[in-house]
Amino acid sequence: MDTQRPLILITNDDGYAAKGLRKLITLMRTLGEVAVISTDEVMSAKSHSCTIHDRLYARLVHEELGFKEFRCNGTPVDGVKLAYQKLLPRWPDLVVSGINHGTNAASTVVYSGTIAAVVESCMNGLNAIGFSLDSMDPDADFDHLDTVILEITKKVLKEGLPKGVCLNVNFPKRCEEPLRGIQLCRQASCRWVEYFKDQYDENGELFYDLSGELVSDDIKPGTDLYAMRHNYVAVVPTMFDWTAHVCLETMKDYESIRINL
Amino acid sequence: MDTQRPLILITNDDGYAAKGLRKLITLMRTLGEVAVISTDEVMSAKSHSCTIHDRLYARLVHEELGFKEFRCNGTPVDGVKLAYQKLLPRWPDLVVSGINHGTNAASTVVYSGTIAAVVESCMNGLNAIGFSLDSMDPDADFDHLDTVILEITKKVLKEGLPKGVCLNVNFPKRCEEPLRGIQLCRQASCRWVEYFKDQYDENGELFYDLSGELVSDDIKPGTDLYAMRHNYVAVVPTMFDWTAHVCLETMKDYESIRINL
Repeated sequence: MDTQRPLILITNDDGYAAKGLRKLITLMRTLGEVAVISTDEVMSAKSHSCTIHDRLYARLVHEELGFKEFRCNGTPVDGVKLAYQKLLPRWPDLVVSGINHGTNAASTVVYSGTIAAVVESCMNGLNAIGFSLDSMDPDADFDHLDTVILEITKKVLKEGLPKGVCLNVNFPKRCEEPLRGIQLCRQASCRWVEYFKDQYDENGELFYDLSGELVSDDIKPGTDLYAMRHNYVAVVPTMFDWTAHVCLETMKDYESIRINL
Repeated sequence: MDTQRPLILITNDDGYAAKGLRKLITLMRTLGEVAVISTDEVMSAKSHSCTIHDRLYARLVHEELGFKEFRCNGTPVDGVKLAYQKLLPRWPDLVVSGINHGTNAASTVVYSGTIAAVVESCMNGLNAIGFSLDSMDPDADFDHLDTVILEITKKVLKEGLPKGVCLNVNFPKRCEEPLRGIQLCRQASCRWVEYFKDQYDENGELFYDLSGELVSDDIKPGTDLYAMRHNYVAVVPTMFDWTAHVCLETMKDYESIRINL
């Protein structure tokens, strides 16, 4: 691979055929050399899981000048690890993940394989961005996002990101009016309220069918959910330090617990 | 179940037979009513993944006064969701996860099924604690931890935790001297350096065998890794808000990107 142009590694969690992945490949090829590590299967809600006991395969499925595509049987996190630690001639200048078919805004980020690949890359000191559209439609239209994806990516390629910080970029559901702009946001707090529907299998045994809805009492100005609701692109600077730093003072009394009685 | 005593939900990611889980059950039964949702299999490194396409089973395997144990075929996150949203007569007063056979300190927290169950519970407004011992030995001795686990748990039951905050408690490898105390810590930054060893399967196809080592250049005073190295129990107040709040000002220029060219 040419070393003059930036090397961009692409992954996602919707499988190799996903339209969002294909769009991202097309866009990134205008900016640099591209390597893709896609997953054999849809890996939604796989979060940061990785394969420690099974065999991990990565097959080179396509190669041409400035472009290589691998397909991996593992999770998105397996894929990026394998790519930059083993498959690529050098560490990439940037890792991009997506475009996910479905939002990864607010606290749902914890479930996301798309963002896990971004966070894993960030832990390894790489610049990394996740892109997600608030639509589960496998045939979703991404064309209106071309400019914003390219401009954000160019900025990150040029300036880099702060150490330990990656970007979680979420696009609102498409509506009649054009996108109003970008807002730099905090992650809104939310949770899934699940319905575990009773079902019975062929042996008469009870199992549960999971469905649910996302609820949030935190759709306030400054949050990603608020921005998206108002047709802005939400950019959340995201980190893997989960420490509640504000509590390091307020909870100091835990150090007074006597532990050898 | 009795409603006078606190209801404590226990889970882990090492499977139903794990010694650390059994120890935690014994300890928690001295403090309240106990419900257990354990996993059929070892679910290490499953992180926050959950089951959205497969059938989720939960079997009641044991019941006596003040105690119920379910076994679930899903991940730890599936288990706790199912338990408090479906299986239990009321929401638990506390969720505890572990005792994990292996550390969940520093950035390795992102891979952990044990801590994912804690974080999921926290997202649902529950008090939650994860306990992990820095030993992968399935026959590890946990007896020296009884007092500290009980005292931390009693404090959380009595006082609760701040909204959006859970506890990630890591115990150092056992050594000759007794534990020196508790330190309230920030999560150290670290990463896995992996070795993907080339292997060939029965068809001659290449696959990769993952092993690796944890490296950190952040074992500094105030971190969990530093505390554990000095034989302290490391308590990290942990949150699911991954926003890099400090960047919300410094990266404001992302809002100036023109997106409709």
